[in-house]
Amino acid sequence: MKYGNILGSSSIAFDQPVYIESSASIVGKKEGEGPLKDKFDMICQDPMFGTDTWEAAESSMQKEAASLAIGKAGLTPRDIRMVFAGDLLAQTVASSFGIAEMGIPFYGLYGACSTMGESLSLGAMAVAAGYGEHILCATSSHFASAEKEFRYPLGYGNQRPLSATWTVTGSGACILGALPPRDEDTPNASPLRKGGGCAVITGVTTGRVVDFGFRDSLNMGGCMAPAACDTIWQNLSDFHRTPSDYDAIVTGDLGLVGQKILLDLLKEKSVDISAVHQDCGLIIFDNETQDTHSGGSGCGCSAAVLASHLLPGVVSGKWNRILFVPTGAMLSKTSYNEGASVPGVAHAVVIEHKEL
Amino acid sequence: MKYGNILGSSSIAFDQPVYIESSASIVGKKEGEGPLKDKFDMICQDPMFGTDTWEAAESSMQKEAASLAIGKAGLTPRDIRMVFAGDLLAQTVASSFGIAEMGIPFYGLYGACSTMGESLSLGAMAVAAGYGEHILCATSSHFASAEKEFRYPLGYGNQRPLSATWTVTGSGACILGALPPRDEDTPNASPLRKGGGCAVITGVTTGRVVDFGFRDSLNMGGCMAPAACDTIWQNLSDFHRTPSDYDAIVTGDLGLVGQKILLDLLKEKSVDISAVHQDCGLIIFDNETQDTHSGGSGCGCSAAVLASHLLPGVVSGKWNRILFVPTGAMLSKTSYNEGASVPGVAHAVVIEHKEL
Repeated sequence: MKYGNILGSSSIAFDQPVYIESSASIVGKKEGEGPLKDKFDMICQDPMFGTDTWEAAESSMQKEAASLAIGKAGLTPRDIRMVFAGDLLAQTVASSFGIAEMGIPFYGLYGACSTMGESLSLGAMAVAAGYGEHILCATSSHFASAEKEFRYPLGYGNQRPLSATWTVTGSGACILGALPPRDEDTPNASPLRKGGGCAVITGVTTGRVVDFGFRDSLNMGGCMAPAACDTIWQNLSDFHRTPSDYDAIVTGDLGLVGQKILLDLLKEKSVDISAVHQDCGLIIFDNETQDTHSGGSGCGCSAAVLASHLLPGVVSGKWNRILFVPTGAMLSKTSYNEGASVPGVAHAVVIEHKEL
Repeated sequence: MKYGNILGSSSIAFDQPVYIESSASIVGKKEGEGPLKDKFDMICQDPMFGTDTWEAAESSMQKEAASLAIGKAGLTPRDIRMVFAGDLLAQTVASSFGIAEMGIPFYGLYGACSTMGESLSLGAMAVAAGYGEHILCATSSHFASAEKEFRYPLGYGNQRPLSATWTVTGSGACILGALPPRDEDTPNASPLRKGGGCAVITGVTTGRVVDFGFRDSLNMGGCMAPAACDTIWQNLSDFHRTPSDYDAIVTGDLGLVGQKILLDLLKEKSVDISAVHQDCGLIIFDNETQDTHSGGSGCGCSAAVLASHLLPGVVSGKWNRILFVPTGAMLSKTSYNEGASVPGVAHAVVIEHKEL
């Protein structure tokens, strides 16, 4: 048994790169009016996605995103060895009734809005170890199912503080594999292989749960920033890198408020990522015109931005190496109402451009 | 990249066995009055575990079980490379405020009552791939937090149908590693190494979510039996084994009702496991005297029975090879109230006696 892959205290570097064979994104109407509107695979105008409940709507969206990713890789569900998926709902029912219905061996995850980072990490670890030819990683969130789960009935029209984020209605899915995406010249060519370039996962950093004692569930950026700081710092330390070794360090959904805290916390550790920091929550909406306050959030936020915007950018060579760091806030209605704090967690995935 | 570990459609066989370095179990008063009362590490008479809420009680119990397992392996939390943990509560808050507080890189899981199977599977996969020297796998459930989460306020004193199971107040934790448990002759000897024998994980079968359309959340055994059948059948098929190749096939919490359905469903596939089948839910309570109807349930049920009863039995050589198959029912208050079905999932772990 070798431990050659272990770096520092929390990271793994893969001997062989794990290929991202395909990605797919499906979002709702509001997301489809934002800056990435031309990049999503599908924008659904019906917030119910043809179903009767918000939960079923999210399940339907997640399953469609997964199907699309499988199709874009030129595969069928039978080709997928296992799924790592999760969502924000209690008992992750969006996944249990979404992707899980596809009959693929299923590992359910809960990492709040960091779930796409957890899913990609475990998926990449499984592919790199030879546990599967093709592995599906996916998450979803839905504005209405999340408001119902964590906040107020939509009909109340509650006032939102400026620190609040807007849960993205969206799902992102990726197929990971040990072989490059299908070539442009073949039938079923994957859009994630262009001009000889593709995107690979070369390492991961597993996040710790970090609790600074914040209790404000309407300032989740603030609750999650300490965890993002911890994971990014750990990644740089474990891989012996500086921020400039990344063309972009992209957090999940810290928003405007959380971004400022993250940059400040890292500066206290003498690390300045301001030149390369981006946040999926600030990419997916135009805060000026879309009234989303601190930005977008939800595990569908980082997943949809990754699938539609980040991965094509890595494939094209716009970015050579990025650190994708989805961030999650650990709370439930019950923990919040009982006065518990809101700890954060963040999982980092190193994604690089690779010439074939 | 090799795929030598993959078997059939859903299983992995490890080249090198993954050692179970230690295990620990903590349960509540009722469980401590049952047949395994002399085997648990700790029986807590206070259902609040010294805290103010049921959720905090579960977190406290889970963290103590994890600490105990780490201590019994002669380790400290700093030695643990990563944790795979989960529970039944919404947004898995028992884990977020339990084990997660230990500052170990953390992957949160949700597999309902199958979570210990998921946790051991992913932990074993990670150890076998060289991603960690020591990995912690744990789950918990608490009767009162589960009743609050899924059913009725305790004060209602609701009537329970005979098909209902009783959620176990308990937590089980295991440390997995690539090296054998510490020797009896050394300080900090692990109780999981006796007379030269120990317990190892040699393979896993990842479960699919199976939905037979059952909608009765007070007959979870019935809801989960089809998934248990699918996973057990798949395990036997993938490993080319018959039921007699196992000294015991131990499901998680099917109870009396689910057990009967499982045996019937497997007989329809010409597989008879009646000679070797056991169920943790039927082991942990004495249904005759403890009024637990169909049996025990909850992800703490299979975890506590594994840690206290099954693993020592494998170490002693009482059983040479067992299949541990925790079973989960996928539902939430919301999915149930919206009339959704209750699909099941089961993850199987092959645990064998090994002479050192």
